[in-house]
Amino acid sequence: MAVQQLMVQQGLRYRLYMQLVPEARFRGISATNLLVVGLVLLSFLFLALETEPTLNTQPGWQQAFAIFNVFVVAAFAVEYVLRVFIAGLDPEYRGLVGRLKYMTRFYSIADLLAFFPELVVMSLGLGVPLIGLRVLRLFRLIKIARFVPAFNIFGAAVRRAGTQLLTALAMALVLVYVSAVALYFIEGVGGEHQESFASIPRAIWWAIATLTTVGYGDVYPVTPLGRVFASVIAIAGIGVVALPAGVFASAFSDELRERQDAKLSERVHDYTAQAEQRPADPPPVD
Amino acid sequence: MAVQQLMVQQGLRYRLYMQLVPEARFRGISATNLLVVGLVLLSFLFLALETEPTLNTQPGWQQAFAIFNVFVVAAFAVEYVLRVFIAGLDPEYRGLVGRLKYMTRFYSIADLLAFFPELVVMSLGLGVPLIGLRVLRLFRLIKIARFVPAFNIFGAAVRRAGTQLLTALAMALVLVYVSAVALYFIEGVGGEHQESFASIPRAIWWAIATLTTVGYGDVYPVTPLGRVFASVIAIAGIGVVALPAGVFASAFSDELRERQDAKLSERVHDYTAQAEQRPADPPPVD
Amino acid sequence: MAVQQLMVQQGLRYRLYMQLVPEARFRGISATNLLVVGLVLLSFLFLALETEPTLNTQPGWQQAFAIFNVFVVAAFAVEYVLRVFIAGLDPEYRGLVGRLKYMTRFYSIADLLAFFPELVVMSLGLGVPLIGLRVLRLFRLIKIARFVPAFNIFGAAVRRAGTQLLTALAMALVLVYVSAVALYFIEGVGGEHQESFASIPRAIWWAIATLTTVGYGDVYPVTPLGRVFASVIAIAGIGVVALPAGVFASAFSDELRERQDAKLSERVHDYTAQAEQRPADPPPVD
Amino acid sequence: MAVQQLMVQQGLRYRLYMQLVPEARFRGISATNLLVVGLVLLSFLFLALETEPTLNTQPGWQQAFAIFNVFVVAAFAVEYVLRVFIAGLDPEYRGLVGRLKYMTRFYSIADLLAFFPELVVMSLGLGVPLIGLRVLRLFRLIKIARFVPAFNIFGAAVRRAGTQLLTALAMALVLVYVSAVALYFIEGVGGEHQESFASIPRAIWWAIATLTTVGYGDVYPVTPLGRVFASVIAIAGIGVVALPAGVFASAFSDELRERQDAKLSERVHDYTAQAEQRPADPPPVD
Repeated sequence: MAVQQLMVQQGLRYRLYMQLVPEARFRGISATNLLVVGLVLLSFLFLALETEPTLNTQPGWQQAFAIFNVFVVAAFAVEYVLRVFIAGLDPEYRGLVGRLKYMTRFYSIADLLAFFPELVVMSLGLGVPLIGLRVLRLFRLIKIARFVPAFNIFGAAVRRAGTQLLTALAMALVLVYVSAVALYFIEGVGGEHQESFASIPRAIWWAIATLTTVGYGDVYPVTPLGRVFASVIAIAGIGVVALPAGVFASAFSDELRERQDAKLSERVHDYTAQAEQRPADPPPVD
Repeated sequence: MAVQQLMVQQGLRYRLYMQLVPEARFRGISATNLLVVGLVLLSFLFLALETEPTLNTQPGWQQAFAIFNVFVVAAFAVEYVLRVFIAGLDPEYRGLVGRLKYMTRFYSIADLLAFFPELVVMSLGLGVPLIGLRVLRLFRLIKIARFVPAFNIFGAAVRRAGTQLLTALAMALVLVYVSAVALYFIEGVGGEHQESFASIPRAIWWAIATLTTVGYGDVYPVTPLGRVFASVIAIAGIGVVALPAGVFASAFSDELRERQDAKLSERVHDYTAQAEQRPADPPPVD
Repeated sequence: MAVQQLMVQQGLRYRLYMQLVPEARFRGISATNLLVVGLVLLSFLFLALETEPTLNTQPGWQQAFAIFNVFVVAAFAVEYVLRVFIAGLDPEYRGLVGRLKYMTRFYSIADLLAFFPELVVMSLGLGVPLIGLRVLRLFRLIKIARFVPAFNIFGAAVRRAGTQLLTALAMALVLVYVSAVALYFIEGVGGEHQESFASIPRAIWWAIATLTTVGYGDVYPVTPLGRVFASVIAIAGIGVVALPAGVFASAFSDELRERQDAKLSERVHDYTAQAEQRPADPPPVD
Repeated sequence: MAVQQLMVQQGLRYRLYMQLVPEARFRGISATNLLVVGLVLLSFLFLALETEPTLNTQPGWQQAFAIFNVFVVAAFAVEYVLRVFIAGLDPEYRGLVGRLKYMTRFYSIADLLAFFPELVVMSLGLGVPLIGLRVLRLFRLIKIARFVPAFNIFGAAVRRAGTQLLTALAMALVLVYVSAVALYFIEGVGGEHQESFASIPRAIWWAIATLTTVGYGDVYPVTPLGRVFASVIAIAGIGVVALPAGVFASAFSDELRERQDAKLSERVHDYTAQAEQRPADPPPVD
């Protein structure tokens, strides 16, 4: 019976390992991790709603927020404990030393910060967590970044664009600065002494709003000369300030296409090799 | 005489079938269906004008709207009845059961919703149709979607872009959320406690207006720190939020080029095969 | 002496033909036509300044405008007479009938409208030309369109983009309409009954300002639901409304590249054929 | 001992030459020149802060600005003297005549203007340099343009785009002008006689703000006809005004890719030639 129990236990551990560790799966995402992603997204929705004065002053919503927060913190605490426990299946993280090594990984620290501070505040009976604590919830983004390849692509695209992106950014910043200096002299020093152009930093705010074409309308030149300059800057400069975005978009697109091609050829390889056994076996149980 | 009459009737049915069923035509659009498209577009123009207070309070315009609506509803009713009647030429929709099968198709239901609710309201003498009914007129878009390949291309481009579009959208949304959280803390919690940044949902409204470069100007940061952050977000983020649009545009362009190539090679094929008979003969009359 | 005089006259006519008729030149633009282009551009600058209240109420500027207008009208009148006179060198436009044929060409009519109405008003002593007359000066754009290949490229790019441009435009317009209907119901009918969303045509103004990312800020949703919809529309829709622009830009770029390649191969051909005589000789004198 | 001293001096000169003259280095940037770039960037930050009223009225900041300015001017003066002195190592600039030739180069004049006017003002004890002098600090951009290849790429991309860029710009300007004339007549002359459309130059300001999609919101049409025209112009015109930006971005991207390819093949060449001696030896000492 002890052997049977052990076997059950081993099977449970094996299944837990397959469910929790994203690298254990050959492809796709496990049901448990999908649930974690969903819970994180839901917690971001609640984080947003919780800050809305028209909601967080109503007792009903307050209670809903409190219950949901307790639930999420508890769920992530359980998830964390299970992750640390199951990590031992990997020879690298076996034993107490291995567990400590696991817990000091970047992702594990993010996992901890995603619930621990709020757990402490809740346990100490401080009621509603303080506003500063809520920012720590953004660490939950890192939790799900592991499962969503898009986040890795982002960084890869930035690295791929490299020099080109830096060059484009440098040119954009020089243009913003020079435009701001020009309008500062025309509208701030001369002209009608507009408050919004009274210094170069203020004029930079105008230059960025204009050259990115956001154009809030809180600042704009009013003198004829200022408008002539702003027009020339707008027509000539929008292309320059849009360069970094274009460079990044192109790198992102190339990166994604390459990955899809790689995945495709991998699948073709799988198909031809399908008679062989599974390549990513779980590590032996300790 | 009975035979002659039958032949005339058969000829009429055949012509009707060729006019109404878009699939019966080898290429292009029939005169009747072109008329339907024109009528739908005109009905959208009238729907717009009908809601304009400076027009719909004048008796002359009121009368024009009423007459036009009766005309359109009558025309679409006749068209619907003819479509159901002529559908029987197709073996699939022959007989009463076939007709019912035809009427429960997606496009047939849209055809019905495009006129029936208004017809009921008119028949019951309720006068001007209620505002809610007017939304149903948008089903007329589906009526014409059958004849306009552009609408199919839209869906095909979305499917083609697939994962890339989803990835780009996910990255855009994460950036919007993180930007909103940052500005919420800087401008809403700290700063000058701006009402427009008093919660994350409100800050999301600012983030979307900024990162899409719409920049209405109803919300913008006023503190120096908020402006520094908003500037960085604007320059770095516009590229990210523009990614989905770029991915879609590229997929749309590829899809359209492929279809034009296919059409061209089809025409070349037609030319070489022009001695043979018409491939898409109408189904035999029941 | 008569023969000599004739030869001088012939030489003058030949030189005039080479100067005035753009097709007579193998490549580039003649000094006279360049002067015409410059004069047209200058007249557009003056047309703009002339409408500015802070300038046209000052006697000095009024005089400058009046003198310049008389000069330009006289110059274009002389140019027109010379063009009609010299057109006779071309066998097609020889004699009175040929001249009439020449004068009824599209470009000749534009040439006439570019100065004649103002000449009449000036001759009748009506002083400053009326405001309506000024619009006719835009015909001067057609005068210079003959010499500037860019204008032909524009049309060629539109034709090249063809179906793709129409499809993209249709999709953009459908999206504008549907967005306007949605916000009309949310903000105009429901919500806070904003005046700016009180009808579909008004909501279309909002939809266009938003989807083109112009975002004046004169109209924007204020209800939470309206903002959620506007956000979704903005993120998803900007790509669609930017499609026609992207399609056109791509067609323009392809067209220009093709022309440059053609010009290059033409030059290579010229170089190999440079021993032969000039291909485009002026037609014989009548 | 004199020989030893000479050798030390020669070594110092050689090292100075390697540090100061960017062309002396085979690749990359020397520590000294990197310091110059950093100092220039810092001086731009200070130039911006110095104009901010909320800072430059505080004694603490005033002192910081004054000390930093003295330091920067002194540093650039020392740098200039060293550059002129060390230029003599190059046979072209040897002796007094050579030094004069060096000092009248474009880059040397920029180097001089970057500190000399402020040095004079400081020496004459005029205290804080006048506002006009500060513009001369923008010459410091030229100082660093020598070390940063991005600035050369900018010019190269403009030349590469050439005719295409000019054509696109011409089309954009024609569209801006025609749009402005149309709205001037609709909104300024007719309509509600809006002040903002009261002349063509004012309408041009609207046209540029709209067609670049900046849309400050200080000017927009209010009449139905004006809005219809503005909508058509916005949807059709944004593509045209975005053309120059697109053309430039494409030329920039091509230029950069070509340079990277050239650099790569250069490196491959270096690798195969690595046994040979350094190609760019410093010139012999005078």
